[in-house]
Amino acid sequence: MNKNTYRLIIAMLGLLFAHGAMAQFIYKPATELTLGGKMMPTQNPFHRVDTVDHPDLPARMKQLFTHGTGMYIAFKTNSTAISAKWCVTAARPLPYLTPIANKGFDIYVKKQGKWQFAGVAAPTGICSTKTLVENMEEGEKEFIMYLPVYDEIRSLEIGVKPGAIIEPIPEPFKKRVLIYGSSIVQGAGTSRPGMAYPAQLSRQTGLNFINFGLSGMAKMEKEVADIVASVDADAYILDCVPNSAPSEIKERTKYLLQTIREKHPKAPIIVMQSVIRESSYVNQRVAKYVRDQNTMIDRETMSLTNKGMKDVYFITSEKFIGDDHEGSIDGTHPNDLGYYRMATFLNGELTKILKKYNIN
Amino acid sequence: MNKNTYRLIIAMLGLLFAHGAMAQFIYKPATELTLGGKMMPTQNPFHRVDTVDHPDLPARMKQLFTHGTGMYIAFKTNSTAISAKWCVTAARPLPYLTPIANKGFDIYVKKQGKWQFAGVAAPTGICSTKTLVENMEEGEKEFIMYLPVYDEIRSLEIGVKPGAIIEPIPEPFKKRVLIYGSSIVQGAGTSRPGMAYPAQLSRQTGLNFINFGLSGMAKMEKEVADIVASVDADAYILDCVPNSAPSEIKERTKYLLQTIREKHPKAPIIVMQSVIRESSYVNQRVAKYVRDQNTMIDRETMSLTNKGMKDVYFITSEKFIGDDHEGSIDGTHPNDLGYYRMATFLNGELTKILKKYNIN
Repeated sequence: MNKNTYRLIIAMLGLLFAHGAMAQFIYKPATELTLGGKMMPTQNPFHRVDTVDHPDLPARMKQLFTHGTGMYIAFKTNSTAISAKWCVTAARPLPYLTPIANKGFDIYVKKQGKWQFAGVAAPTGICSTKTLVENMEEGEKEFIMYLPVYDEIRSLEIGVKPGAIIEPIPEPFKKRVLIYGSSIVQGAGTSRPGMAYPAQLSRQTGLNFINFGLSGMAKMEKEVADIVASVDADAYILDCVPNSAPSEIKERTKYLLQTIREKHPKAPIIVMQSVIRESSYVNQRVAKYVRDQNTMIDRETMSLTNKGMKDVYFITSEKFIGDDHEGSIDGTHPNDLGYYRMATFLNGELTKILKKYNIN
Repeated sequence: MNKNTYRLIIAMLGLLFAHGAMAQFIYKPATELTLGGKMMPTQNPFHRVDTVDHPDLPARMKQLFTHGTGMYIAFKTNSTAISAKWCVTAARPLPYLTPIANKGFDIYVKKQGKWQFAGVAAPTGICSTKTLVENMEEGEKEFIMYLPVYDEIRSLEIGVKPGAIIEPIPEPFKKRVLIYGSSIVQGAGTSRPGMAYPAQLSRQTGLNFINFGLSGMAKMEKEVADIVASVDADAYILDCVPNSAPSEIKERTKYLLQTIREKHPKAPIIVMQSVIRESSYVNQRVAKYVRDQNTMIDRETMSLTNKGMKDVYFITSEKFIGDDHEGSIDGTHPNDLGYYRMATFLNGELTKILKKYNIN
């Protein structure tokens, strides 16, 4: 056998093997399963907002609204393995995200009433096919699989073993709590989608924290305030200080809160200070900027409550990510350690408030 | 002015601006500063081992020995800003690392006797120029800047403001504790280089934990055991179970420990079980494999101590990354939350042992 014949046989064996690996799964479109964490109904189910309804928004913001951020596919299956076949866009990867968080998935399984991490699917290109979990014990189980925090899903199918069932389940989280904010809400700095702090809060509390994170673009603009207020939710959390200049906070806080209040007269509105950027402990200019932002949001919120706006709460940020200075990836965004601390701290603060409104 | 003229002027202004930004820093080769965290002297200072001395090692292992993993540049400067100009290789990015950890840097500043996170440099291509920190208060400060955990440094210069001094400082960490292990030692799953657990341990304890992590290749091979034993250290930590099959652990543990013991008669040898892979809580095959690995390393270590080998310690892994199942990026590697928990737990275990040998 000469070298070329040998190579051909190896190549053919490779193809057969690849085909065998693919054939181990039967695929179902994710659109036939439960799609949770959505802000509002949209024509493209994997988008957050139908941007065609908002032609004047900046292009980058429109792009962010096409990201699957905070959404998850919920289903049950008796398959002992689960895979995903999906396509995202060619958008360049971000420096403060792993490819898994940027363009991949993580999956959680329900065990003794709790959602437990089970696996990930890392992208191999624009389109990928990956096994998330395998060799599980027999029996029907429930899963949630988080969509990438920073890319658009162009197509998504979930694979199970031949003969296994895969079906939608009821929305696994209760009520609806919207979090409007920056990249820190969206999940910049996470290792995988489920580590974004709204997702952690949902798993910790059982409540449905909806991710309205707009990386670099959460500046409380009037158009966006209108979209925030149009979202049907039981409570509104505003973590939109990090991207807003002190002057913008001064100009825009009133409209944002009043617009939400008009549309949702009884819903609690919880205003958060900006996380204290780790870079501010060394960069004097950043330190002043964050201080000014946080002073301004405090003043503007207080001004509204002093004038009689009810059901407004304020959370200060000094304890968000701990005090050892290790909870940040880049001086601006938390890392998984920081997000874990932030979710755990906010859980304590938020559940106290939400309980008063029977949001529990 | 026609459109093309306008474009030309804009482009020229852009170049001028870029030149201005560059010109804000005066660069010094990193080789003229302190290079810490090195396993042994090497011809190329940014390599861990001179692989030319070990022609028979697998190609991937040779490549891993060219990575800057665990090394850091230590210096003092009175500059109020610091930048880096560097080149890495075209090696493809890894799915379980951010580009910052993979091919970039993070920097720590000494504050009140402690190393505090100050900033990062994210790569923009094979060669990049980035500011790590700026707008600092006046005065001389000490810094350590960690090299990428998963790439080779082809060139590296550190930039300071014109007129500022930048000088080497004495090695900032005491003694030498070698950690031989897998990708989990090397830092897979971290958000930035300083979050690898040996680096965290060094900052927490003040001791110099040297990173001998070989992603996917820490299988206790005889050739590598000889390299481990050739490293001059005060203590030897073996976290090499995750990549080693139970049969390899059975065959190779004795040679590894005996070889270290012969070369270093009095040095403590600390054997670690494999971290319990998060995937093992759902994947029955992985669960059995990790159990078998951990049982085997326990048995093999015990067999040697029963036969009279002294100064050998064993650390079990059930508490490494917590019990909420959130400390992993992909079911195998910890994320920053997991690494923080692992470093904090190991700190408690290791310092008790090392203190007995005056390694403190």
